[in-house]
Amino acid sequence: MMAKRKHNFNAGPSALPLPVLEQVQAELLDFDGQGLSIMEMSHRTPVFEGVLGRARDALIRLYGLPDSHEVMFLQGGASLQFAQVPLNLGSGGAYIDTGTWSSKAIKEANTIGHGAVAWSSKADGFTAVPQPGEALAVPDGAPYLHYTSNNTIYGTQFHHVPEAGVPLVADLSSDILSRPLDVGAHGLIYAGAQKNAGPSGVTVLLIDRRYSRAFHGAPTVPHILRYVTQAEKDSMYNTPNTFGIYVLALVAEWVEAQGGLTAMAARAEAKARTLYDVIDAYPGVFTGHAARHSRSLMNVTFTLVDPTRQAALLAAADAADIIGIKGHRSVGGLRASLYNAVAPASVDRLAEVLEAFAKG
Amino acid sequence: MMAKRKHNFNAGPSALPLPVLEQVQAELLDFDGQGLSIMEMSHRTPVFEGVLGRARDALIRLYGLPDSHEVMFLQGGASLQFAQVPLNLGSGGAYIDTGTWSSKAIKEANTIGHGAVAWSSKADGFTAVPQPGEALAVPDGAPYLHYTSNNTIYGTQFHHVPEAGVPLVADLSSDILSRPLDVGAHGLIYAGAQKNAGPSGVTVLLIDRRYSRAFHGAPTVPHILRYVTQAEKDSMYNTPNTFGIYVLALVAEWVEAQGGLTAMAARAEAKARTLYDVIDAYPGVFTGHAARHSRSLMNVTFTLVDPTRQAALLAAADAADIIGIKGHRSVGGLRASLYNAVAPASVDRLAEVLEAFAKG
Repeated sequence: MMAKRKHNFNAGPSALPLPVLEQVQAELLDFDGQGLSIMEMSHRTPVFEGVLGRARDALIRLYGLPDSHEVMFLQGGASLQFAQVPLNLGSGGAYIDTGTWSSKAIKEANTIGHGAVAWSSKADGFTAVPQPGEALAVPDGAPYLHYTSNNTIYGTQFHHVPEAGVPLVADLSSDILSRPLDVGAHGLIYAGAQKNAGPSGVTVLLIDRRYSRAFHGAPTVPHILRYVTQAEKDSMYNTPNTFGIYVLALVAEWVEAQGGLTAMAARAEAKARTLYDVIDAYPGVFTGHAARHSRSLMNVTFTLVDPTRQAALLAAADAADIIGIKGHRSVGGLRASLYNAVAPASVDRLAEVLEAFAKG
Repeated sequence: MMAKRKHNFNAGPSALPLPVLEQVQAELLDFDGQGLSIMEMSHRTPVFEGVLGRARDALIRLYGLPDSHEVMFLQGGASLQFAQVPLNLGSGGAYIDTGTWSSKAIKEANTIGHGAVAWSSKADGFTAVPQPGEALAVPDGAPYLHYTSNNTIYGTQFHHVPEAGVPLVADLSSDILSRPLDVGAHGLIYAGAQKNAGPSGVTVLLIDRRYSRAFHGAPTVPHILRYVTQAEKDSMYNTPNTFGIYVLALVAEWVEAQGGLTAMAARAEAKARTLYDVIDAYPGVFTGHAARHSRSLMNVTFTLVDPTRQAALLAAADAADIIGIKGHRSVGGLRASLYNAVAPASVDRLAEVLEAFAKG
């Protein structure tokens, strides 16, 4: 018998929409009447090309992708992009350091060539992202400015698109498909799929053709790591993660059926408000980690004023079928990840548990 | 209603064992009573670490892996390994060129630094692999000799382990788990999973710790591409393809349940013999592509003496629920891929169709 499905607040890989999982299950042995699983199918077939096309087209529609840009599907996650960005766009990029993920991106830039830190909240424990109008120290001639749209660990998020007069590169791994975004203002957007867009093992790129159709790196860069190599082959220079792209197509179509990115953004704001309201209502019990102006709608991070009570809170959550709220070791405390597939009812349940804990 | 499952001879991604697919389907919404899908679970949980451990341990048992070696799971397929091998083991490696895949590996070696061709069957249309005792031109000081154990396109396969006095690197993408192999004689074995070991998007490494625990490349190699980076984190430096590793664990355990690699080899030999016997029995109809001593047990490649009859043969196969036997464009003709999960009954069915076609 199937166990009751949990209220899943995992930071990633994380909740997927139940209708998507049910469809995957229903057609697992026989996709589209073909008499075989989607996993058993050559990627070089019209049927799989159709699946990849569905994923691509849904992303184009959802973001209103301008013709200047195209969609690519790669492997290796954001971590491989930390290297592929400087390998493809050139050395000397500038980075906004909002902790962990952007720090890792800077480390790879400095391994391959050099990266410049244009802004950092390290001194403040990465509790904030730069606000509109705040100065960014972007060196003259920097080939790009890189930022991490949402930081899962510190629970911070950009609520504007930074401007610096150089092409923007954004890591959207933890808030892709969660809200509308001006893709045309970016040279390159990349995202590991495993939080808001699908299972792990697929990386989504929304990329300006000036980077996907012309290579700007060194001649020693392996072809497999050049964006042009994959773009010329419609993301199938080598065998892609076919199952992952298939699930991603279903997730993107599910987002459209929910009303698209505007609807997802409204839903994300409502879910986050539910939790932040409880946290703010009990300052003697909870402390939000991020500065208010930088609070993430995806990852709500907070600590207990009395940390000795944390085990009791986790036990109460567990009793309510809530999982995945233990904070990352860098911050401690608690973290609730509210990605697209986390139902509002699950967030309400968590808010009830927090409120009962605060009152008790 | 589910369509009848096909006799699936796809070259890759390709057939998976039906019991594996049925298990994946049964537990898709609720893995191990956790109340969530395997895809919805953080990789940093004891439950997923257990799954990765099952995959690793099954591979250790199946190959009798020596303590000198360890198992790793990466992303990016063999194509990324074409680059990672010279990036990690150093420039100047020697390559046995048996077509397409080894040619691509040589191209990446020459992009990153330089690679030497130690042997090539290019002049013979890649119909053969070197035989035991045949001379290999390995330059003094070459850090490794690379070979492609099985070539899917030309239908050739090594039936011995080459010897050259330097560490061996083998691409086992299309015959991993199909027969016993002396892993200890190799410095590094890698394989994309999508033919014999699981779905696409997972790369298996059986690697000597001298390469996984010490880095031998240049300081400009991105950390994400260094074997040491992933080995130190048990293949979880970044989020792995969790679903792919899970399916791979089930496939490896299925291979064990069938009797392990010795049993799979006997089964592969019997299946291949069934087809080669028909091809050889009708030399006026069929022409095997590969030289007999180099014939692959995984990919049986052949052409029709009268190529105008090919459409009729494909139609007869289609009527018998047989798919995936059209040859690769480089060779033309036909190709039947006989990976582990292809049932002997499916091969018998194809042999019947070929024989009826030859007689008709």
